[in-house]
Amino acid sequence: MIGVYGANGFIGQHIVKQLVASGHSVRAVSRKFDTHIASIWGDTVDMVQADFTNPLSMLSSLQDVETVVQLISSSSPGMGNRVLIEDIKENVIPHVSFMRDAAEAGVRKYVFVSSGGTVYGPDASVPTPETARTNPINSHGMTKLTIEKYLQMFSQVEGLNYVILRVSNPFGPGQNFRKGQGLIPAILQRHREGRPIQVFGDGHNQRDYIYISDLVDAIGQAVSLPEIRNEVLNIGKGEGKSVLDVLSAIETGLGITLEKEFVPNRGTDVSMSILDVTKAKTLLHWSPKVSFEAGIRMMLDSEK
Amino acid sequence: MIGVYGANGFIGQHIVKQLVASGHSVRAVSRKFDTHIASIWGDTVDMVQADFTNPLSMLSSLQDVETVVQLISSSSPGMGNRVLIEDIKENVIPHVSFMRDAAEAGVRKYVFVSSGGTVYGPDASVPTPETARTNPINSHGMTKLTIEKYLQMFSQVEGLNYVILRVSNPFGPGQNFRKGQGLIPAILQRHREGRPIQVFGDGHNQRDYIYISDLVDAIGQAVSLPEIRNEVLNIGKGEGKSVLDVLSAIETGLGITLEKEFVPNRGTDVSMSILDVTKAKTLLHWSPKVSFEAGIRMMLDSEK
Repeated sequence: MIGVYGANGFIGQHIVKQLVASGHSVRAVSRKFDTHIASIWGDTVDMVQADFTNPLSMLSSLQDVETVVQLISSSSPGMGNRVLIEDIKENVIPHVSFMRDAAEAGVRKYVFVSSGGTVYGPDASVPTPETARTNPINSHGMTKLTIEKYLQMFSQVEGLNYVILRVSNPFGPGQNFRKGQGLIPAILQRHREGRPIQVFGDGHNQRDYIYISDLVDAIGQAVSLPEIRNEVLNIGKGEGKSVLDVLSAIETGLGITLEKEFVPNRGTDVSMSILDVTKAKTLLHWSPKVSFEAGIRMMLDSEK
Repeated sequence: MIGVYGANGFIGQHIVKQLVASGHSVRAVSRKFDTHIASIWGDTVDMVQADFTNPLSMLSSLQDVETVVQLISSSSPGMGNRVLIEDIKENVIPHVSFMRDAAEAGVRKYVFVSSGGTVYGPDASVPTPETARTNPINSHGMTKLTIEKYLQMFSQVEGLNYVILRVSNPFGPGQNFRKGQGLIPAILQRHREGRPIQVFGDGHNQRDYIYISDLVDAIGQAVSLPEIRNEVLNIGKGEGKSVLDVLSAIETGLGITLEKEFVPNRGTDVSMSILDVTKAKTLLHWSPKVSFEAGIRMMLDSEK
């Protein structure tokens, strides 16, 4: 059985759907489930409520789980460094505790969704390969990197097979602006509220946007291919789009002009983040298919 | 003023003595001070009692401190991985909190004593350069590496200059077997108690032993040379000695034969740890001077 942790989230909902469609037996684990999701999944998914900060409830959720897909993250890049200590307490510690439990429970593969946009340092070459130096400059990246290192330790010491997916910026239907998930939902929300769009810096900072279906395909391959174990893989589109590119694609999609407000940089973001995804393409027999513009159109259509 | 944190420990006592002798103004910070140390230091050292897990007492200790020498460690390699979560709570979190305070208090240089024997992975080439992959396999190494990464983040974001010293296995007078500090004091204690010496594995595992005066010289250079900032440096002798070599040197020094008991490996130790110290030699204009055998003799003499 595949245990998807953080199943009620943006990526979680999509990956559960895809794994069920591929014939996998899936346990969806989350602190809570949206009622519409619970009704859609019905009997096809084993839904288990568990609180990540409660090790006992997490431990019991591991029963019969052979593969873990770990999507839970209580930190977000947008919080900057005010939450350093909280992120260690509420994110790193529960992850380490759960990985130890998973190793002891005999989990065969542990797929951890890390952050391609924050684990590499600001001096990394672009596009950034997996071998680049990891020197995060924000708390979110630090927690992701720390969890990666502990996972690799459990692999060495306890034999837990890991797959670390350093994912770039996913986007698509179901992404929730309330949880601070990405630029695109934030722009759409500001627009709905009739407020100007805040642009950090000059708007030329680039990010690597990957459409949710491409991400879900990559996770599915990482889960399914038995030869994929103890690997670190970048997952992204492998191309950069600036904030101004994003705004322009949304303006084209909506047929409007957005009002912009330029504000200073936060200082804890790297200016350029584009992943080299050559390794994932080769090892996962995968490649991202949805163009940025097509993805934006599908996302806008889903909101109509 | 130089703040030495963990001043009452083995390395701390030696480094305070050396810094005072070199004419530096020194604040010694510790949870407690041995009475004989307090009487020796007297008026020459500003002794401040502070508890590392109490951020307020640590913050006030930073007043007028330009350089921090951070030696505090509540974790030890010998505890293995039973203490993973405790090490994060009691070691990583207080360090991160203190580094943030130091950055905000305007500290100019932060010298962190890390662990050359545990931050590199078991697959690292030997002798191991600073550029080797860092993949600790025990909790002690994980906490040291995590603290390193946070320190580098504070350097990038807050401008705190760091010097990370990845120290091999120091030994010398004052090393305390009660705190689990190293193989040599443990052997001497077992011998004093008339018990056989436990040898993990076949006794051929090698470690890089550095005599305390050589280590203290390196720390002194890292503190004093203004051009040494934002550097990671291995500090060791650069040569390996096996457990059997250590036993043999002690037997020669004491003119006896020690009774040995071979027990299985702990599984969370790397088999071979020897540092490449070329970078430190060049940048610190330093080199280790005391041979292993001479160091053992001086240590045995000090116990007479």
